[in-house]
Amino acid sequence: MTDRIWNFSAGPAVLPESVLEEARENLLSLGDTGVGICEHSHRGKPFVAVAEEAEALCRELAGIPDNYKVLFLQGGASTQFGMIPMNFLAKDQTADYLVTGSWSKKAVKEAKLFGNVHTVCSSEDKNFNYIPTDKTYSDSPRYVHFTSNNTIYGTQFASEPAGFSNEAFLVNDSSSDIFCRPIDVSKYGIIYAGAQKNLGPSGVTLVIIRDDLVEQGNSELTSMLQYRTHAASDSMYNTPPTFGIYLMMLVFRWIKANGGLAGMHERNKAKAGKLYEYLDSSSLFQPTADKASRSLMNVCFVTGDADKDAAFLKKADAEGFSALKGHRSVGGMRASIYNAFPSEGVDALISFMKDFEATA
Amino acid sequence: MTDRIWNFSAGPAVLPESVLEEARENLLSLGDTGVGICEHSHRGKPFVAVAEEAEALCRELAGIPDNYKVLFLQGGASTQFGMIPMNFLAKDQTADYLVTGSWSKKAVKEAKLFGNVHTVCSSEDKNFNYIPTDKTYSDSPRYVHFTSNNTIYGTQFASEPAGFSNEAFLVNDSSSDIFCRPIDVSKYGIIYAGAQKNLGPSGVTLVIIRDDLVEQGNSELTSMLQYRTHAASDSMYNTPPTFGIYLMMLVFRWIKANGGLAGMHERNKAKAGKLYEYLDSSSLFQPTADKASRSLMNVCFVTGDADKDAAFLKKADAEGFSALKGHRSVGGMRASIYNAFPSEGVDALISFMKDFEATA
Ligand SMILES: Cc1ncc(COP(=O)(O)O)c(C=O)c1O
Ligand SMILES: Cc1ncc(COP(=O)(O)O)c(C=O)c1O
Ligand SMILES: [Mg+2]
Ligand SMILES: [Mg+2]
Ligand SMILES: [Mg+2]
Ligand SMILES: [Mg+2]
Repeated sequence: MTDRIWNFSAGPAVLPESVLEEARENLLSLGDTGVGICEHSHRGKPFVAVAEEAEALCRELAGIPDNYKVLFLQGGASTQFGMIPMNFLAKDQTADYLVTGSWSKKAVKEAKLFGNVHTVCSSEDKNFNYIPTDKTYSDSPRYVHFTSNNTIYGTQFASEPAGFSNEAFLVNDSSSDIFCRPIDVSKYGIIYAGAQKNLGPSGVTLVIIRDDLVEQGNSELTSMLQYRTHAASDSMYNTPPTFGIYLMMLVFRWIKANGGLAGMHERNKAKAGKLYEYLDSSSLFQPTADKASRSLMNVCFVTGDADKDAAFLKKADAEGFSALKGHRSVGGMRASIYNAFPSEGVDALISFMKDFEATA
Repeated sequence: MTDRIWNFSAGPAVLPESVLEEARENLLSLGDTGVGICEHSHRGKPFVAVAEEAEALCRELAGIPDNYKVLFLQGGASTQFGMIPMNFLAKDQTADYLVTGSWSKKAVKEAKLFGNVHTVCSSEDKNFNYIPTDKTYSDSPRYVHFTSNNTIYGTQFASEPAGFSNEAFLVNDSSSDIFCRPIDVSKYGIIYAGAQKNLGPSGVTLVIIRDDLVEQGNSELTSMLQYRTHAASDSMYNTPPTFGIYLMMLVFRWIKANGGLAGMHERNKAKAGKLYEYLDSSSLFQPTADKASRSLMNVCFVTGDADKDAAFLKKADAEGFSALKGHRSVGGMRASIYNAFPSEGVDALISFMKDFEATA
């Protein structure tokens, strides 16, 4: 078997090796069923057990209160950008958006199709390299939407935005930092995340939604666009993405075995900490995000010289450090070091960077 | 490794064993990339090559004309039930639906949210056990929608519905018989299918759509609900279900290696043929679908005695014939024998049924 390399992809991203090994063993037969994991009916006992374990572990890991539904949907976070305003924002209402990156902007664009959007804050003035501290909410927003981690720019909220009308509910696009640290779900109305960074493969989207919102959603939409449809049928109104849910269940088991969300937080602080520490000390590489806004998940950095960046990326790739190229809107490098990214991979990267710096 | 059993699941359904074996080998490293198939960025070369091969093989197998787009979407056929009228049916327009089963009815329900629905024909009078021959179209339907194979009832159209205004375009929910036989794509405006019966795992939906329709779709919808969004970005506007597309690509390779759609048709006629032949000769089991409307994919049958059905199902399950229980709206048994279901499994089932009949 080919050796695995260090995969810094921003998503789809590295998965725990033990999870992939277990999935591999179950591809032709899930346990002793004689039927592979992708081939089981979603209505049959073996898959229903998988889906139930996925939900139970998700609830346990995040301490999700009983008055929240846990949904496994299709369509990615991009579908949620639309489903949220479509369900909750009427023409004469206003939703408040914190604009901290391209994903926030895409979410705003969809919301404007349905109602008014008020911008609480924006860090676009500095190419989204920081999380604004000044926030101005509208008087009575229907909801307040933020992107807890900005995948492209490597910034992350240290805590939930606060200070808005308590009539409004908080919505979080947590696609790129879900379960990277403990979370107080009771502060939120809706948390959503495409699985493909911290939770599993692409093709399944986790949505955690409060029961009263499930009820309040627009009932004139097609079935698939109403949260109540999925809530009422345990995400099995239609055929769910069974393999994705299975892998997510295995990832939840792995998170639990590694100390739960608190354990993930310790791991992530240690991994990101040593990388930022090196970047701060390096005279070749500089981190691009504001110090107070640094992400635990996506570490962005540049040399300040496009040719050197290119030379570094080329050498990195040749030596088994893959997908380190930054997004074109930032340039330079981005090391995505999600939950499953091994600490040894960060050590290896730092040592490679030091060598490069010494010879550059 | 556990022996594989005969899996008659209606979907998710059996996949070619060689496809699963190949997927297994690529779960920790796709080829020699050192990164597993689920972990590759959808924008990276290795996955883009997979997606391109999937599209190219799909086009080759079905002879898809150049003026059609091939899309790999999320959300299942159920999302298409809504997306089609949402994109093409205005309030004052009429769409014509052929109602041949529960899935057709669900499609109708979503269409009624957007415009008028005219029922061309319905076989509900006989619990959908036949494909109607009498059809009355409306004068100028926007489109004509049919379900080419009725998964639950085991009926299938022998050929495309015809005789409607040539201003209308034909839409086919081909979820449960896509690529079971050659198809003349040029007769259609849109063909869609959840992958989980004939093409791959659940979580990816194939949509074949004519270019002029991509252009005509409602442009006031959210990005994810417009076909043009996906058409313009080769189904990569957002993160696609990468593993599902990979498995579909492997299934397309398998279809090609096994004679293409003509080869599938021969296989399917032979498999279904011998099962119906036995059912016709059996004095214990009766097929439920009208002879002229029989499906190549889902073979439904009963003993006429609920207790005997239950005894049969219990014994079948114990002997490794899995998921033979019919849908509750038909009762009895259903053998789903999609493209990937092996001919030997049909032989084994027939011989088991003969034994059961002999001792019942
Ligand atoms: C923060 C954030 N939101 C949304 C998305 C879009 O997710 P999806 O591709 O699942 O639609 C991404 C994907 O990278 C992301 O990083
Ligand atoms: C003919 C037909 N149409 C639609 C569907 C629904 O598909 P999905 O579960 O992908 O939404 C099915 C699923 O069994 C089906 O058999
Ligand atoms: Mg971003
Ligand atoms: Mg539940
Ligand atoms: Mg049906
Ligand atoms: Mg193309």
